[in-house]
Amino acid sequence: MTKPVAMAELWRGGMLESQHLGHAVICDDTGEIVEAWGDPQAVIFPRSSCKMLQALPLLESGAAEAAGLSEAQLALACASHQGAAIHRDMATRWLADLGLSDADLRCGVQEPSDRAERNRLIKADGSPCQVHNNCSGKHCGFLTLNRHLGGGPEYVALDHPVQQAVKAAFEEVTGQDSPGHGIDGCSAPNFATTVTGLARAMAFFAKANPEGDGRNRAAARLTRAMTAYPELVAGEGRACTELMRAMGGKVAIKTGAEAVFVAILPERRRGIALKIVDGGTRAAEAAICALLVREGVLEAGHPATLKRLDAVQKNWRGIEVGIIRKSEGFA
Amino acid sequence: MTKPVAMAELWRGGMLESQHLGHAVICDDTGEIVEAWGDPQAVIFPRSSCKMLQALPLLESGAAEAAGLSEAQLALACASHQGAAIHRDMATRWLADLGLSDADLRCGVQEPSDRAERNRLIKADGSPCQVHNNCSGKHCGFLTLNRHLGGGPEYVALDHPVQQAVKAAFEEVTGQDSPGHGIDGCSAPNFATTVTGLARAMAFFAKANPEGDGRNRAAARLTRAMTAYPELVAGEGRACTELMRAMGGKVAIKTGAEAVFVAILPERRRGIALKIVDGGTRAAEAAICALLVREGVLEAGHPATLKRLDAVQKNWRGIEVGIIRKSEGFA
Repeated sequence: MTKPVAMAELWRGGMLESQHLGHAVICDDTGEIVEAWGDPQAVIFPRSSCKMLQALPLLESGAAEAAGLSEAQLALACASHQGAAIHRDMATRWLADLGLSDADLRCGVQEPSDRAERNRLIKADGSPCQVHNNCSGKHCGFLTLNRHLGGGPEYVALDHPVQQAVKAAFEEVTGQDSPGHGIDGCSAPNFATTVTGLARAMAFFAKANPEGDGRNRAAARLTRAMTAYPELVAGEGRACTELMRAMGGKVAIKTGAEAVFVAILPERRRGIALKIVDGGTRAAEAAICALLVREGVLEAGHPATLKRLDAVQKNWRGIEVGIIRKSEGFA
Repeated sequence: MTKPVAMAELWRGGMLESQHLGHAVICDDTGEIVEAWGDPQAVIFPRSSCKMLQALPLLESGAAEAAGLSEAQLALACASHQGAAIHRDMATRWLADLGLSDADLRCGVQEPSDRAERNRLIKADGSPCQVHNNCSGKHCGFLTLNRHLGGGPEYVALDHPVQQAVKAAFEEVTGQDSPGHGIDGCSAPNFATTVTGLARAMAFFAKANPEGDGRNRAAARLTRAMTAYPELVAGEGRACTELMRAMGGKVAIKTGAEAVFVAILPERRRGIALKIVDGGTRAAEAAICALLVREGVLEAGHPATLKRLDAVQKNWRGIEVGIIRKSEGFA
């Protein structure tokens, strides 16, 4: 088994303070590895980085069309949003359109990370709802598919038709049987795969033909939705939103908990997946920036890049105290 | 150079999801290494884990006695507190006693992590102050020493008598010249040392004679202050506070940013220092728990331990989704 390699580092006072190791794979449109760092066969949980895979059955089944979902709703279905007003409102309307309510969600209640919405709730002595959960869009998608399939209300159970459809699509697009699953923060099953399997899935999305078969059309629509609505996929200030904007809508990217990051590069017909072994988000953001710069789709000097790679760290008084860099030999 | 070793892991669905590497050293009362994992000579920034070292000149100079500091104030000088009302009020009174105000601090403004105080500020449309900064107690200590030494107002400058006194004490107690310094989150210089140097310093505190010379008396008083006021050293819910309480005041421990943790064990006359290479706090907490359990001073089954080691991870719906464990072969 190949060891993970150093990918990102925090330097302070001219000395290395902290270092993150990881695995990364770039696949081409044949699903083969173009380049890899660390162990391409490392088994990982994609966590939220695979939300576009989890949304495939929503489109392929015809459920999205039957429900008249907009492109913005498809973006929200792929989102790990921060529970801002735009996310909260879209999820709330979506549930109402389905004749459902917050109580029908199974993602759980999460305090919004959007500061304006968080502060509004605190000032009003209000409580967050399930629509604030970063996964509420994905769950609205699950509920839309569930209506179409006629399944029971416990749509996050492993043997529920919604999750079985997700599992089948996930294994087909990653090109591997999943070696197992865990339960995600939002209570849905999260299927394990290799870093290569995840990169291969992203390469499939990258080459998906919008005039092709059902799966191709679904993948192409989801990629387009993510790049068209970067503010829905995460939120103001967040890596996915800022970096997709920085790349002018040409590349779709998605983060996942425990430091997973994926990218779909349609023009280059390539997919990228990476996992920082220790789960450090700052390192996953730095590493995906490094790979996107290397692929020529992200400017090294763009402010959204410099917030995460070659990123000056300031302290409480705004004094420069360190920098986050990519490790020597990576990307 | 010895590589860091696996110390803590997150497991999900029966599979390893994330893993943290680190270095750890236990020193005895001669300053020699009893046991080590990873590279005992790894150079690290102790960050806030060395606040009791930074407080030595405050006592040794006679400044603490001249100002009539209480044992609680000495605990706050060693704290990374969460800006709760008790911390805010004590720092505010301390400044007033010195005839100074919030504006004389140089730690910068930080939103309190204490939820009650955070929410109070939001509801009142208030702004956090420098006293809310987790390091404000240390800075009150610096200001007290500064008054005694007659230095200028920029007491965090490297060449200021306060920081020169800190550096001298730091190098003497770690037994090493510091190879360099960085600027900390609170703007004070933070002197680098090896993991062994930091463990040796903690062993000095552990064996310090309360009837001995000035430095011995200072170290013994600071250790006693930390263990007597665990709620001042961090705050409700926090690792330092909960674990010191769990050990019944027999052991002083302190965390530092970027996953440093130290422990002072007076009865065993030992000192511990560890650094998780990636800066992951959860891993530093799990690893120090593992070492304290191994040393026989912390119960493996105590709720404060089980929050951090063999710690069941629950999701937004309270469903068990994973566990944080120590890595095989460590501690």
